[in-house]
Amino acid sequence: MTPDQFREVGHRLIDWIADYHASLDSRNPGPQVAPGDLLAALPQTAPLQPGDVGEWDRIIADLDCLIVPALLHWQSPRFFGYFPCNCSMPGVLGALVASGLNVNGMLWATSPAATELEMRLLDWMADALGLPEAFTFRSPDGGGCIQGTASEAALVALLAARARAVRAGHDPQALCVYASRHAHSSIVKAAMVAGIARGPDDTSRVRSIACDAAHRMDVQALARAMRDDLSRGLVPAFVCATLGTTSSEAIDPLPAIGALVESMPRRPWLHVDAAYTGAALVCPEFGWIIEGVERADSFCFNPHKWLLTNFDCDLMWTRHRRLLAGALSITPEYLRNQSSQSGQVIDYRDWQIPLGRSFRSLKLWFVLRHYGLEGLRAHIRAHVALAAWFEEQVRADARFELAAPRVSGLVCFRLRAGDEPTQRLLQRVNASGRAFLSHTKLPDADGRERLTLRVALGAPATQKRHMEELWNLLDRAADEVLA
Amino acid sequence: MTPDQFREVGHRLIDWIADYHASLDSRNPGPQVAPGDLLAALPQTAPLQPGDVGEWDRIIADLDCLIVPALLHWQSPRFFGYFPCNCSMPGVLGALVASGLNVNGMLWATSPAATELEMRLLDWMADALGLPEAFTFRSPDGGGCIQGTASEAALVALLAARARAVRAGHDPQALCVYASRHAHSSIVKAAMVAGIARGPDDTSRVRSIACDAAHRMDVQALARAMRDDLSRGLVPAFVCATLGTTSSEAIDPLPAIGALVESMPRRPWLHVDAAYTGAALVCPEFGWIIEGVERADSFCFNPHKWLLTNFDCDLMWTRHRRLLAGALSITPEYLRNQSSQSGQVIDYRDWQIPLGRSFRSLKLWFVLRHYGLEGLRAHIRAHVALAAWFEEQVRADARFELAAPRVSGLVCFRLRAGDEPTQRLLQRVNASGRAFLSHTKLPDADGRERLTLRVALGAPATQKRHMEELWNLLDRAADEVLA
Repeated sequence: MTPDQFREVGHRLIDWIADYHASLDSRNPGPQVAPGDLLAALPQTAPLQPGDVGEWDRIIADLDCLIVPALLHWQSPRFFGYFPCNCSMPGVLGALVASGLNVNGMLWATSPAATELEMRLLDWMADALGLPEAFTFRSPDGGGCIQGTASEAALVALLAARARAVRAGHDPQALCVYASRHAHSSIVKAAMVAGIARGPDDTSRVRSIACDAAHRMDVQALARAMRDDLSRGLVPAFVCATLGTTSSEAIDPLPAIGALVESMPRRPWLHVDAAYTGAALVCPEFGWIIEGVERADSFCFNPHKWLLTNFDCDLMWTRHRRLLAGALSITPEYLRNQSSQSGQVIDYRDWQIPLGRSFRSLKLWFVLRHYGLEGLRAHIRAHVALAAWFEEQVRADARFELAAPRVSGLVCFRLRAGDEPTQRLLQRVNASGRAFLSHTKLPDADGRERLTLRVALGAPATQKRHMEELWNLLDRAADEVLA
Repeated sequence: MTPDQFREVGHRLIDWIADYHASLDSRNPGPQVAPGDLLAALPQTAPLQPGDVGEWDRIIADLDCLIVPALLHWQSPRFFGYFPCNCSMPGVLGALVASGLNVNGMLWATSPAATELEMRLLDWMADALGLPEAFTFRSPDGGGCIQGTASEAALVALLAARARAVRAGHDPQALCVYASRHAHSSIVKAAMVAGIARGPDDTSRVRSIACDAAHRMDVQALARAMRDDLSRGLVPAFVCATLGTTSSEAIDPLPAIGALVESMPRRPWLHVDAAYTGAALVCPEFGWIIEGVERADSFCFNPHKWLLTNFDCDLMWTRHRRLLAGALSITPEYLRNQSSQSGQVIDYRDWQIPLGRSFRSLKLWFVLRHYGLEGLRAHIRAHVALAAWFEEQVRADARFELAAPRVSGLVCFRLRAGDEPTQRLLQRVNASGRAFLSHTKLPDADGRERLTLRVALGAPATQKRHMEELWNLLDRAADEVLA
């Protein structure tokens, strides 16, 4: 591809992206295809000859006609499903530059800028979130890195915990993992990968801890589980506290969990998963959420969820960077180099599962420089205000009930009339083409699991009028469903 | 950021990338910084206020003055280190579109296009490489996906192998892993992550198999290792054959390894790691490399190394997609959906460690449409011809010796005079600012580990004149070193 052709098609695709985002408000946020539709439209074999002069026109036409209709539009202002996966134009540009440079920052030596920019950004963000000094590179054994996802952060934290326990003389087969029953599935998956759980339902070493009425981990239950395991000769090795569970944004009581962990004869590793809610910590008024974090061994959250930074970008910090690297490091001759051997540099390959790594810090850097922390705070506060407004509508309507206290940007609710009407309500709203919601199950006051709808804020384009329209949709659909 | 500002800055950055690539030939491929230089130049705290009207000018100036000088320029035509991490302008554009859409394709339902385009591309590429029908989605239990790296492909293959062995009633503590001593470090790392090896040097369950004089796995040694383990009550569970080792591009004898694996009472999983060399398989003349692949259970290679597709993009196929997904699947309520439950769709989250996943197939699609298979073949053949030419120069010069037979694009060589002069030669070449090489150690005919220089082709801009200049550099530097 000639540089001129790259400039021309590149400019067109930049414009195409701008146009796509501008089109989202008037577009159905959901995909308009059935299983196999796109497969049927794609050729059976790869192109043999290079594309001719019209190929990029056809590629862009295919984006419009084949790809876009088969997307769930996560950037739509009408997207309220799962947790958000938001992006921003500065984030897109940062990812573009990273992709254009295409360096592999596996070692400091293989692109010092990729390592040192990431180190500094992790310190910036630790300070912005109010994380302890011990999590920064200013401390002798602290620091952070960018992981792909919170799943990978949980896995490497678990591997560090295992390494510490094994070094202390424990049998790896005796190690136990604890997380609330509302913790993310990635915690159990990490235990599966590490060979601690034999499958998603293997409870021999992974404890699913009961929760209180607000879906927060019951610390007494955690204490009992750890004591029981100790009395059976097992070793409590890893506790995950969730700050903002996926189902309901419940905030596990970190101070009490930390105190319990510290009181144990052999201190388990305490990992904190704040994947979604962590973004809100840029606002001081949410500082209460991480009270007690100074006892954590590792912490992570995802700027790719709600902090305007394109997927993938999970920030993970630890107070034990040597232990973490020690659990993951393996150095064949072909990776040896003077800088690594000097001990003066960080080699991020030792903080992660893969060897290769891209220059992900650029997109976060662009986001921080464009918005500044004040811009990010305004972004979060606008969404929190919208969520609060939506919560008020639900609360004021006797047909609905809130399924969980709202913390920041997630509202969980259902029809009092039960699961079946709630299911039909969800289907009607999503079929309208004017909003996309997803669901979960949460126990009601009597402990019965109830189908629950989730409205998760996070798409940057969402405004008050989208919330009003969503509420009107729900209002009318509830009338129809309950009629 | 307004759409107009995005268009303006986006166009500038597209041009900036084109200019960066145009600058590479005249630029030192190595980084021009010492540890801490960039850290010292970056502010201690994150920007508080949003950037003003001049901020994007300053960001672009910082890219030029702070970031670019601190890179190892993997796209430089003068980059011959490690294995390449190449990209192309169509690949950059595909990554740009993926980043602009920023969908999370964790489930089919969360963006059908991301799943179905990837499925079709994996079938296209299986056919282009000559992989067996059993690895395609046309087969009832076959198919492929994009992993981030070959490390992750090896890990999920190992987890599938473990799941199969455990399901067959074996004790997970008895499972053994086999790879040649020249296999990539990611194989041992996967065993560490999975809890099969307690560290990089733990050989209790991971066997490093001896190699022949061409650094290929010695199948007799593999047979002995497996027999020994069986006789001790252990379970050979996972064999990795490397097609193109990192040190020397050695091709393990797949037909013999496959026959051995099939002859075992309980068949171990056979994984094939063709991370670099796999790209050459688009050329029929390299088809001999995968002879015997029909016995493999999984296969991977990295288009992000040598097939013009931006990092990250590892293609992995398996004949056992249900087993793979079964080893990694965990389904909380909030991910349940009608399409998944219908059994009609692929949910790629179950093929990988993370939950979230980006739309990586777009970049490979753009590459295939722009270049076509014939364009990719021409790209590979041009590099192979350059490597062959370079190999001839080494062979014809009595001061040098080849350290391994050349297979496709990697030439391994050293000064006959020994490690110390070879080390000084490497330093001189890299210090010249006209080329970047990296090193390894390979045994000589007497079995002594010898420092070895590697010239790995892969940067798309590399031409004959760069190879000639490199050879002239080596020629003069050898004179100086040997003087």
